[in-house]
Amino acid sequence: MVDSSTTVAELRERVRAFVHARDWESFHTPKDLAIALSVEASELVEPFLWRDASTRLSVEDRESVAEELADVIIYGLSLANALDLDLSEAVLDKLRKDEAKYPTKQFRGRAP
Amino acid sequence: MVDSSTTVAELRERVRAFVHARDWESFHTPKDLAIALSVEASELVEPFLWRDASTRLSVEDRESVAEELADVIIYGLSLANALDLDLSEAVLDKLRKDEAKYPTKQFRGRAP
Amino acid sequence: MVDSSTTVAELRERVRAFVHARDWESFHTPKDLAIALSVEASELVEPFLWRDASTRLSVEDRESVAEELADVIIYGLSLANALDLDLSEAVLDKLRKDEAKYPTKQFRGRAP
Amino acid sequence: MVDSSTTVAELRERVRAFVHARDWESFHTPKDLAIALSVEASELVEPFLWRDASTRLSVEDRESVAEELADVIIYGLSLANALDLDLSEAVLDKLRKDEAKYPTKQFRGRAP
Repeated sequence: MVDSSTTVAELRERVRAFVHARDWESFHTPKDLAIALSVEASELVEPFLWRDASTRLSVEDRESVAEELADVIIYGLSLANALDLDLSEAVLDKLRKDEAKYPTKQFRGRAP
Repeated sequence: MVDSSTTVAELRERVRAFVHARDWESFHTPKDLAIALSVEASELVEPFLWRDASTRLSVEDRESVAEELADVIIYGLSLANALDLDLSEAVLDKLRKDEAKYPTKQFRGRAP
Repeated sequence: MVDSSTTVAELRERVRAFVHARDWESFHTPKDLAIALSVEASELVEPFLWRDASTRLSVEDRESVAEELADVIIYGLSLANALDLDLSEAVLDKLRKDEAKYPTKQFRGRAP
Repeated sequence: MVDSSTTVAELRERVRAFVHARDWESFHTPKDLAIALSVEASELVEPFLWRDASTRLSVEDRESVAEELADVIIYGLSLANALDLDLSEAVLDKLRKDEAKYPTKQFRGRAP
């Protein structure tokens, strides 16, 4: 499965099956899923600590970033499952809001 | 665009276009994208604070959770773009590792 | 050294000496100290994950919480050193603001 | 109250009084205090986002950093109160561990 041919719903289904096979739905409250996602997000930050933003990641760190990002996405998909939210819709809605908030004329080349 | 018919690549493309239209690639270092994702992850946690995990979200809080989760996903897609990582592949790899780490026989109904 | 007889300045001095003995001041930019603090804050959250808020911590988890909280405080003291901020003053200022924001009459027994 | 003459116990007492005056002990479970601390830690990171680590903070951002750091410390003191942990002891214990883990000879001038 690769990004070009995988739908968000297919990924959600994989995560749902993993959780269901372990009967983990009762632990996976929206509150704890949000917390777990935020813990994984911090682990994603760790390989970048104490380094200049322009430093190239080592192969090892790149793999660890891929794995931590996967964990973030997995909890995000699981939270969407638990709350029955459509992620593509939420992403598109947010991008539309951000487009209105950061007009290209005013923000081209300027950090928000 | 809804999850059942939207590929991860299509979402990535939308995010890439948003960033490119603002020339934000130079700010969007992998380090700062990881930090931004983690800041949004904390905002996602906020509506759950001081409440029992079983408390139902209000309609307002549900909308705010959807928006913060969208922000997390957007930065995740942007980080995948910046590092040229395939997210579906990373998610599937991680689920396979977790399946080996948490065998259903041993972990059914038991938190990890 | 115990809380009843240790000043904040004494703790700051200990942390400063630790950092100075390793010549780490150049890595310890305010930005990276803030990020490090937030990474440790997430590790502090981890022992509470997937558990009811009323669950008593095991002796082991209590020790791990003490250690992660110490890490958070150490980075907080180091950030105060790097920015030359008085922490006691900042804490008192913030408590005064919060006292005004959450009057006891209105917020007694009600989460903020 | 300034760092040079304020003990950690005095700060803890102030925070305890603030919480008690509002009867907030029942919301302030160790789990939610840890989460609240981590949410504030992310707000502390926000003023540094999208900027080079060497960028000087504006007066405004410096004030906001002081306030967010105060929030982190306040929740840290409150968590120490809730768990009856001695913070000075925990900090000294951790520094001793770190001194053993990062000997000056090996780590002088090298990030951990």
